[in-house]
Amino acid sequence: MKAMFTNFVLPLATKNGGGAAIVSRTLHTFGLGESTIAEKLGDLMRRNRNPSVGTTVANGIVSLRVNSRFESVEKATAEMEETTTLCREKLGQLIFGQDDQALEQVVGALLHRDAKCLLLATAESCTGGLLAKLITDVPGASACFHQGYITYSNEAKTDLLGVPADVIERHGAVSEPIALAMASGVRARSKTDYALSITGIAGPDGGTPAKPVGTVWIGLATPDTVRARHFVFTGDRP
Amino acid sequence: MKAMFTNFVLPLATKNGGGAAIVSRTLHTFGLGESTIAEKLGDLMRRNRNPSVGTTVANGIVSLRVNSRFESVEKATAEMEETTTLCREKLGQLIFGQDDQALEQVVGALLHRDAKCLLLATAESCTGGLLAKLITDVPGASACFHQGYITYSNEAKTDLLGVPADVIERHGAVSEPIALAMASGVRARSKTDYALSITGIAGPDGGTPAKPVGTVWIGLATPDTVRARHFVFTGDRP
Repeated sequence: MKAMFTNFVLPLATKNGGGAAIVSRTLHTFGLGESTIAEKLGDLMRRNRNPSVGTTVANGIVSLRVNSRFESVEKATAEMEETTTLCREKLGQLIFGQDDQALEQVVGALLHRDAKCLLLATAESCTGGLLAKLITDVPGASACFHQGYITYSNEAKTDLLGVPADVIERHGAVSEPIALAMASGVRARSKTDYALSITGIAGPDGGTPAKPVGTVWIGLATPDTVRARHFVFTGDRP
Repeated sequence: MKAMFTNFVLPLATKNGGGAAIVSRTLHTFGLGESTIAEKLGDLMRRNRNPSVGTTVANGIVSLRVNSRFESVEKATAEMEETTTLCREKLGQLIFGQDDQALEQVVGALLHRDAKCLLLATAESCTGGLLAKLITDVPGASACFHQGYITYSNEAKTDLLGVPADVIERHGAVSEPIALAMASGVRARSKTDYALSITGIAGPDGGTPAKPVGTVWIGLATPDTVRARHFVFTGDRP
């Protein structure tokens, strides 16, 4: 999930002999699709705007690339900053980082923010360990992440996390109540500040018209609340 | 961990105008380093041998590439098969697959081999979920893999897997006794046929002269036995 582009400054010679500079920044968002992001940005994404704003998508992350081209680095930088600020105003908390900041690094930094390190635990079904792997790939993660569960089967969700079997029976394993129960269960058993849960249909089999392949519920349990959100991701297994 | 090369047949026109064909196969091994594999293959790897045998390494897997170049596809194929057989005789069970077979696919196929599917569970420390992710990336894995544990901290190893705290104290978390106890613990708690455990030092910190970064113990619990092996891997975190 590393961003592909980093901030750069490129002085150019133009055809008409004048100096020119391109300055770029990339902002990363999570939680909405590319078309919804484009709608929110509206006029900022119009053709021939300078600085220009374009979007790319990878691993569920929609990134905005701001390219600013002016006669000097100073002017290009100032214009880039202004457009970046406009993007931030329109997207708010959807933006989690910029340039080479990966989502898991930002999460790690948030957990480390205060003097005491906040604890996070995970319970995964369809991702099979990927979530924990991304979190523990960040050096220093061991201070905030002590344990995680991979509960692939329904029995494992019940045995390891205390998800009631009758709720699975009633709603299916890929559902809001199960994402909530997994998040609450892993937080209680791990005695952590935060807990994340993921349950979904990775495919190639198991999809239905109501729950197609790519359907995912992500749950979050905090000291104050438990909530879950629904996503439908596209793309194949790796 | 997908192999980069697949078996191919390439008819060629040679300088002297005669027909020529190259046929290739790649064999994948795990468990020994490249130089030890080369030693075992001995004369098969000598320069200018035809078919030639060369090695590459990726993710701890040493792969042998057999290239056979002769005047016809039939001859090249027959010679390739003969050299492949010689490699198999020298390396035996070290070879787990060929061409585009990944290690996790071979493991999946072995678990599915009989009418009943054998069950596997995992307990990981330094890999943080990667082992379970690789296993569950194989379509159909859910029949054989129901649950896994990520026990990053010592407390998690004790709480979730029953690893005795005094054994961790005495030997350190990255040691043969802990790999054995993790494998036994996860097999008992998951009620599976097989269980794998991994404990190691991923770095960048935590290495010592006696246990450098890359030191890993892998444990395996089966219905009959529990054993562990020691590895020192090179390379960085991803």
